[in-house]
Amino acid sequence: MTGESLRINAARLRDDIEQLAGIGRREDHGIYRMAFSDGDMQAREWLLQRVDAAGLTVHQDGAANICARLGWRDDVASVIAGSHIDTVPGAGHLDGALGVLCALEALRVLKDAGVSLRRPVEAIAFSDEEGRFGGLFGSQALAGQVTPGYLYSARDLDGVTLIDAMARHGLDARAALHAQRSPDSIHAYVELHIEQGPVLDRQGVSVGIVDAITGLFKWQVTLTGAANHAGTTPMNMRADAFQGLTEFATQIDRVLEEHGSPASVATIGRVELFPGAANVVPGQAVFSLDVRDTDAGTLARLAESFQRALAAIARRRGLMFEYQILSEIAPVPCAPLVRDAVEQAVETLGIEATHINSGAAHDAQVIASIAPAGMVFVPSKEGRSHSSAEWTAWNDIEAGANVLLHTLQRLAG
Amino acid sequence: MTGESLRINAARLRDDIEQLAGIGRREDHGIYRMAFSDGDMQAREWLLQRVDAAGLTVHQDGAANICARLGWRDDVASVIAGSHIDTVPGAGHLDGALGVLCALEALRVLKDAGVSLRRPVEAIAFSDEEGRFGGLFGSQALAGQVTPGYLYSARDLDGVTLIDAMARHGLDARAALHAQRSPDSIHAYVELHIEQGPVLDRQGVSVGIVDAITGLFKWQVTLTGAANHAGTTPMNMRADAFQGLTEFATQIDRVLEEHGSPASVATIGRVELFPGAANVVPGQAVFSLDVRDTDAGTLARLAESFQRALAAIARRRGLMFEYQILSEIAPVPCAPLVRDAVEQAVETLGIEATHINSGAAHDAQVIASIAPAGMVFVPSKEGRSHSSAEWTAWNDIEAGANVLLHTLQRLAG
Repeated sequence: MTGESLRINAARLRDDIEQLAGIGRREDHGIYRMAFSDGDMQAREWLLQRVDAAGLTVHQDGAANICARLGWRDDVASVIAGSHIDTVPGAGHLDGALGVLCALEALRVLKDAGVSLRRPVEAIAFSDEEGRFGGLFGSQALAGQVTPGYLYSARDLDGVTLIDAMARHGLDARAALHAQRSPDSIHAYVELHIEQGPVLDRQGVSVGIVDAITGLFKWQVTLTGAANHAGTTPMNMRADAFQGLTEFATQIDRVLEEHGSPASVATIGRVELFPGAANVVPGQAVFSLDVRDTDAGTLARLAESFQRALAAIARRRGLMFEYQILSEIAPVPCAPLVRDAVEQAVETLGIEATHINSGAAHDAQVIASIAPAGMVFVPSKEGRSHSSAEWTAWNDIEAGANVLLHTLQRLAG
Repeated sequence: MTGESLRINAARLRDDIEQLAGIGRREDHGIYRMAFSDGDMQAREWLLQRVDAAGLTVHQDGAANICARLGWRDDVASVIAGSHIDTVPGAGHLDGALGVLCALEALRVLKDAGVSLRRPVEAIAFSDEEGRFGGLFGSQALAGQVTPGYLYSARDLDGVTLIDAMARHGLDARAALHAQRSPDSIHAYVELHIEQGPVLDRQGVSVGIVDAITGLFKWQVTLTGAANHAGTTPMNMRADAFQGLTEFATQIDRVLEEHGSPASVATIGRVELFPGAANVVPGQAVFSLDVRDTDAGTLARLAESFQRALAAIARRRGLMFEYQILSEIAPVPCAPLVRDAVEQAVETLGIEATHINSGAAHDAQVIASIAPAGMVFVPSKEGRSHSSAEWTAWNDIEAGANVLLHTLQRLAG
């Protein structure tokens, strides 16, 4: 069997997806496998059995990342594929899980076909990507980014510490401080994931070759005017903070068009007015501004432009404005090594694909700090994600899995 | 002494205002005389003593409205001036109290000067104008608008019933059902009040001749789009409910200019976004719309125009919209009889005055349903109201009080 004719076993992959989807599923059809919960531990147990059944070796590091390995050698940098099997509460069946199971399937095919590879290949399931204790825990541990400060303070929303949650299952969280992999030990990382956006679905394309993972800045903006009686204050004597916000919101498209790129998005998702009564002109508006792009320079220009727009509106309307930076994440371009391998795989397979950016965060952007990393997307029906309505057609999943298989083969061959 | 030379005793009025301001005042400088609270009862006691000291007769009706009377006769319709001495929690010292004390002072001057009047004159303090149990209770009782249904269900925010609150002070709330005054018994009602808006203060005018009390409609509007990931959903694939609200908010000025009057105001004071997270495109926006004008026809046109604007925005943006009417209050024009008397008083006194509308609700608009009613405004510093920062200059108070005195003299003479 030549390398080019290799294909994943669709029935076997589908069976894996359906089995894993049954773990942690509740009556509302949502899946509950938050990191180190019973559901997550049951899924890990199942995954270990599947790895064992495939005749692959297994490695678990100090962050409880599960690694299935094919042709492992200590002295050669490996090619890693993976994602995570933990979920948000009420999740769908594909976010994370699909990337892990497609990676496992690829390793099985490579093993069964006896393809000779120069490099070891690993299928990895990272711990707590979704953030019960903060998110991206497993990949950050692998990249040497987990600090004792984080480790000893991380808690979930119920106040349970990461240390206790792991200890409950016989795991020592402090070992995550020693889970760092040497950059020399990783030749490349590739992650298959659902898009979590509507682009591929709208375009009717099976596979997205990810060019970059977007960076973002998130601000909390406060506009302050004067609260006044809604009946007794004429329109021209108001300092209405909400009208200031309104004017700013209508300028978002203009700012993106003038200073952004086609990849730029900006969102006001949270608004609070004070005092917040129907019969009082709002004296204060507090709102979030979430801005994303794939280019750090573009993000910087957008930040400056949004700030300038806010300042002008505040000045003109007699409002005060201040903003607080809630978070800033740098964009991560996908490594040409991985992107080229994905492109060649798509070409070999004759699959329709398009270039796309990731608007969501992924383990890949963490691993990019220590190794060439890239991603493959498959469509999300109507862009739905973090919901039991998450769905991807089987033929798209099969296409994506075959692209991952051929990408790994190329990178390791 | 001729009628034209009559003037109020500014020192005596000021003394009354300062004494009453001390009742119910707490450490935060705010006044707490919510209806039938201990503070309110203490203020009532003080008022009764002042009425008695002035040698005026007193009448308390079934709604516990306190009426000081000069030259009372059962067979001649009286002229009533007044307002209320109950307050919102944390109130200033002038809202309501000023109208009652200026009326009392006017009666004292008329009595002391021995002016011969054809009609009885009354100074009234209405119960629960501010709404511990719903608002405008005393004036509604006088106008025959209090129903048994209201009386037996009215409660304050702590669940205390109106019946219990009054019974605690030996008052029978059910008597309010019999407090109705015959329209034949009232020749006119005039209420002096602080403006509670910034117009007179900005114009530097001492007295406002009120032409009308505005009506209003208050809606709760819901715009529904689709909640989507703020990172993965391109701008042109969103159905952002907040952007729909934003577009509507920017059309408020246009709609008021095209379909309203110079008196029209519209306010969005409350906004809630769902799910309300910084990283999620808002799928739903729920907001209040409070619109006021002095003309019923204009209000109807504005309602239609705002509805049309909402429908067009929803259609264009692929949103659903619905609205719920929270309240509708008809505008009340001030009676020409009273307005003319106020105008003549202003002229006689040579006081600078301007015509103005009331944007807030007052007992006068209830009394207007059974008798010719009107109002006199004095400035509110920076429009502040329902706050301990409420303030009016003494010379403006004196001017307003003299206008009230001469208005009463004219209406009763």
